[in-house]
Amino acid sequence: MKIGPVIGIVAALLTTISFIPQVVKTVKYRDTRGISLLMYMIFTIGVFLWMVYGIIIKQWPVILANAVTTMMAGIILFYKIKEPKQ
Amino acid sequence: MKIGPVIGIVAALLTTISFIPQVVKTVKYRDTRGISLLMYMIFTIGVFLWMVYGIIIKQWPVILANAVTTMMAGIILFYKIKEPKQ
Repeated sequence: MKIGPVIGIVAALLTTISFIPQVVKTVKYRDTRGISLLMYMIFTIGVFLWMVYGIIIKQWPVILANAVTTMMAGIILFYKIKEPKQ
Repeated sequence: MKIGPVIGIVAALLTTISFIPQVVKTVKYRDTRGISLLMYMIFTIGVFLWMVYGIIIKQWPVILANAVTTMMAGIILFYKIKEPKQ
């Protein structure tokens, strides 16, 4: 197997799974004060569009990775939106 | 222009620029308690590998977008690492 696709796959796996610890932390501690609402609004729309792009080009890895990331970014965004007022 | 590439470009732009408000917020308020160290460690390595992947496949948009994101994720990671002890 060539090195290019391997690095691409590892990169895709890492950027996708990286959101797991943030989801766990946010759901557990509900401390979203340091998290940017604007970041997660833009990012969630962005990865959702990546998923749509995957559907258009019919690439299952692109669809799957971005569906998972959209879900996780959406959870963080949800907790950020319902952040208690200080 | 076909719809596929347009959606891909918009998706890439959104996921890249989304980190700008998080960098601004983190640099300004230094409140990184709600931010996951593990997320930014894994994510920064992931986007760096995306950049390497871009170099291997010689795609400037992939290189550029991920170089910018690596830098921004790196800044957030830096502030998270030097977070003052509570």
